Amino acid sequence: MSQIGEKADRIGVPFVLTEAIAMLQRTPIVIDALLRGSPDDWVTADEGVGTWSPFDVVGHLIHGERTDWMPRARIILDHGESRSFDRFDRSAQFTESNGKTLADLLGEFAIERRRNLDALAAMRLTDADLDKRGRHPELGVVTLRQLLATWVAHDLDHIMQIARVLGRQYSDEVGPWRAYLRVISGTQG
Amino acid sequence: MSQIGEKADRIGVPFVLTEAIAMLQRTPIVIDALLRGSPDDWVTADEGVGTWSPFDVVGHLIHGERTDWMPRARIILDHGESRSFDRFDRSAQFTESNGKTLADLLGEFAIERRRNLDALAAMRLTDADLDKRGRHPELGVVTLRQLLATWVAHDLDHIMQIARVLGRQYSDEVGPWRAYLRVISGTQG
Repeated sequence: MSQIGEKADRIGVPFVLTEAIAMLQRTPIVIDALLRGSPDDWVTADEGVGTWSPFDVVGHLIHGERTDWMPRARIILDHGESRSFDRFDRSAQFTESNGKTLADLLGEFAIERRRNLDALAAMRLTDADLDKRGRHPELGVVTLRQLLATWVAHDLDHIMQIARVLGRQYSDEVGPWRAYLRVISGTQG
Repeated sequence: MSQIGEKADRIGVPFVLTEAIAMLQRTPIVIDALLRGSPDDWVTADEGVGTWSPFDVVGHLIHGERTDWMPRARIILDHGESRSFDRFDRSAQFTESNGKTLADLLGEFAIERRRNLDALAAMRLTDADLDKRGRHPELGVVTLRQLLATWVAHDLDHIMQIARVLGRQYSDEVGPWRAYLRVISGTQG
């Protein structure tokens, strides 16, 4: 809205590696600030059967650090399109997070993310590297740039999800204000 | 999902004042962690004409600290249902944030929030106070408990919005992964 008249109605910021890395660094801090110290009923709250709690989401993010983003980046750099990525297990956290506390998971996520960003920096990726292609088992040919952009957007997707899951826990408590709160009504904008 | 079989498919955590205050304290930290130091094109990015950028959202939150939540709490305690709340200006930030930087706004928000939570603590609200009623100009009778629950949910609504606005800026850059990212596709779950 602050930009009306200054640009056309299309959205998008071009991928810049240093900016993407800065955002990936923020995520463990943002999620820690949202969740650490919260009572268990908030941490394990979800949006109904089959949906994830904040606890589940953090476990999912840890599994992504270990098996998804950087392993796939290495497959692209080492094998290109000749070797498909391994499939990602979207329910790994239901066993891997067993017996852990939220504080355990927040600590693990921060450590794994740091390790991955150190490894990413050590790759000293060029624009030509970012154009390199790999093969996703379902989506087909993708580039390293798209993989890294997706890592960022995926973080933001799950920050959005955690905020939504938490906000919805007050669906009843807000009373008539329910009509105004998009986090509860489910509308966007 | 971690809770399947342990509870029915309904969501909600009951309002507890100390928990609500803890969440209200987190919000400036979360938003600071999400945004501080980001390049201008991210901070002023929006979702198209008529939508808000992260910069706009922080200005809106500041205006709420000054004119919405605590002023309304005081009207409830001092006047009950006899005096309607003043209307809230949802576009005040477009003039009030003029000429300011994001860092200015993040600082103002943190200060105003701290001041309001100090004032809220000083009220030493009882359960009976939380049941007290006021009058919203459009929604009619509401309680102080509902007002405070809405303050929390409203924070989370806008954290969700900031994450969504940021994530959508990579709509093109993620390539085929667009189909999997709810932050971009706009689906929920």
